[in-house]
Amino acid sequence: MGGERHRAQVTALPTPGLMLRLIREGSPVTRSDLIHLTGLARSTVGQRVDALIASGLVKEVGEGSSTGGRPPAVLAFDHGAGVILAADLGATHSRIAVTDLVGTSLAETAADLDISEGPGVVLDWLESTFDDLLSEAGRSKREVRGIGIGVPGPVEFATGRPVSPPIMPGWDGYPIPERFETFEVPVLVDNDVNIMALGEYWSNWRDCEHLMFIKVGTGIGCGIMAGGAIHRGAEGAAGDIGHIRVTDDPTVVCSCGNVGCVEAIAGGGALARQLADLGLDAASSRDVVRLARAGNPRAVHLVRESGRLLGEVLAAAVNLFNPSVIVIGGDVSHVHEQLFAGVREIVYQRSLPLAARHLRIVRSDLDDRAGIVGAAIMAIEHVFSPENVDAAIAAGMRTTG
Amino acid sequence: MGGERHRAQVTALPTPGLMLRLIREGSPVTRSDLIHLTGLARSTVGQRVDALIASGLVKEVGEGSSTGGRPPAVLAFDHGAGVILAADLGATHSRIAVTDLVGTSLAETAADLDISEGPGVVLDWLESTFDDLLSEAGRSKREVRGIGIGVPGPVEFATGRPVSPPIMPGWDGYPIPERFETFEVPVLVDNDVNIMALGEYWSNWRDCEHLMFIKVGTGIGCGIMAGGAIHRGAEGAAGDIGHIRVTDDPTVVCSCGNVGCVEAIAGGGALARQLADLGLDAASSRDVVRLARAGNPRAVHLVRESGRLLGEVLAAAVNLFNPSVIVIGGDVSHVHEQLFAGVREIVYQRSLPLAARHLRIVRSDLDDRAGIVGAAIMAIEHVFSPENVDAAIAAGMRTTG
Repeated sequence: MGGERHRAQVTALPTPGLMLRLIREGSPVTRSDLIHLTGLARSTVGQRVDALIASGLVKEVGEGSSTGGRPPAVLAFDHGAGVILAADLGATHSRIAVTDLVGTSLAETAADLDISEGPGVVLDWLESTFDDLLSEAGRSKREVRGIGIGVPGPVEFATGRPVSPPIMPGWDGYPIPERFETFEVPVLVDNDVNIMALGEYWSNWRDCEHLMFIKVGTGIGCGIMAGGAIHRGAEGAAGDIGHIRVTDDPTVVCSCGNVGCVEAIAGGGALARQLADLGLDAASSRDVVRLARAGNPRAVHLVRESGRLLGEVLAAAVNLFNPSVIVIGGDVSHVHEQLFAGVREIVYQRSLPLAARHLRIVRSDLDDRAGIVGAAIMAIEHVFSPENVDAAIAAGMRTTG
Repeated sequence: MGGERHRAQVTALPTPGLMLRLIREGSPVTRSDLIHLTGLARSTVGQRVDALIASGLVKEVGEGSSTGGRPPAVLAFDHGAGVILAADLGATHSRIAVTDLVGTSLAETAADLDISEGPGVVLDWLESTFDDLLSEAGRSKREVRGIGIGVPGPVEFATGRPVSPPIMPGWDGYPIPERFETFEVPVLVDNDVNIMALGEYWSNWRDCEHLMFIKVGTGIGCGIMAGGAIHRGAEGAAGDIGHIRVTDDPTVVCSCGNVGCVEAIAGGGALARQLADLGLDAASSRDVVRLARAGNPRAVHLVRESGRLLGEVLAAAVNLFNPSVIVIGGDVSHVHEQLFAGVREIVYQRSLPLAARHLRIVRSDLDDRAGIVGAAIMAIEHVFSPENVDAAIAAGMRTTG
């Protein structure tokens, strides 16, 4: 009796993993606190705490108060009991880090690298960069607990394979996690904008259940946090706002094959082309930023107009999804005064008053580190989920570093 | 030690409420199964099952298999251990029901009633209709376990108060739950399109995590299920797609004060006005349906064009939210051939191939019962959530009927 349905639900019942959650997320606790909080027998709590201490994840950090006798030991999660490898692979620029078990960077580097060089070149480079950063941090490969990687395209999250990514030739269906099998740890791969949303949420907005992160770089993308979790949608394609139509103008042809997409007129790449057509020296979204910052009136005007078009899309998104906060990042957000003026003008004009009454539209605080923070947190949340901690403890997990 | 944070998490630990979830949602179980599934001591499981039996929610329904001795009793959730009152109050038409504890209707009625008559008139009528239906079902007021109500406007879900509802004069901020205080049970109030989405999800699409329910009636609204739960958004305003802009035409003035909203050109009310302007006998969305069904070419053309405009909005929603299924209901869906042709044409043309590759666009199977089913399920899921069952048992809940 019971069967599949019940087995899935047992994960909601008290296990070493759930106790670790109490220890990781709450105030410091003693064994007595855990007995009180879980309602479990003293012997059961004792066994499970012993398992967590043996695994190296929990340590005794001091003594609690006592009404008599020996003061009880206070238990805490050991942030240093392993490391996480995190990578934010962008179209032309990447950031790699080694972090501790709460996502604090121990060693970090950024580099220009073209994702279109394909998985062979890029992942060779990534693996050797991971090695270098581990050395720099003075940690060993055996201490790695999990790996989180963001890529600039749609990903089938369950398998870590890119799905028809438009700007990643050679990556379609490539099994990225298999490449890191020698680490023998979970490897999580997701779209770069999703991990940026997670990074911003985790660092700055954990009191906001519903957040949208908009990246305005060469293209325009969006990562969504709904109810505190990444909303990936049915095919992992959620947040692809760059291809929402904003104009009937048949001359606005998008790389996706449709006409009138917001990215084809308001993305950084489109802005650069429009400025180049005017005879200005602009080949990339960074050039657009440089010109706008220098006060070039054409560039300033275009960025503001780009904000208005983005505002049309975001007004629709606000009516549909009703977020608490919209965080805007990406290169073009570096001229936020002009961009945000346009965005805010249209969002507050077009969104329903109820949906917009407490809406905040802010610039990304983490800026170009949002992805790397999110990649680390994605791996940490997976590795230390109650069910995975239970499985690891059952399999005899032990920090060997 | 511990404090607020821990108290919130204790609900994830095993309680009579969680045991009831195992009993409600799984296959039939015995006490031994529960001991095995939860890892709790025999005496603890025994106590908690006794509490559930004493509450009337669980009954012994037969005998399981045994390797010797007396066969163990099989435990089951008692669907009849109380009733739920459910109401779907529309703009001009309402449906009311008494259901059992799994949402099956025991007595049900529908009536024309103008929500604009205000809370006094409408809720008096609702209360007396609840009384009539309870009599019809042969159940008493003391057997009511919860009340679920949908209204045609935005609701602050936590308090059950409508928030600036445009078509509900007199209802702004009205505390609907207080009106039913004499039942001494939870009263849940939500936007009608949200409960329709929940009803369809629960009845037909529980394998689809992400669902959008589109109601095309006088206006156009949308209820969203994300990850199996209603997505209400930061202000309870999520899903208000009727006011997304689809045209620059300055003559398309919407009741919301903006121009170019999809509802102002493609909603049933707008279609009726356009047909009336052509000299046809059309005052409501039902008239539009009647004319289109009769083959009136103007009406057929308008409905198809309405589908295309709705398709523009849904294509954007698909790119943003990436649902598995879009369910379309409301009066105008009764001419689904024409409406769906337009919707599908544009959605499949404008959505990204990845987001749309497995997308289904279907007509509401529950039709005008989607709301009432959802209202009952909303109340049931709340009343029988583990934490509420625990609180009720602690307070000495007992079926008295």
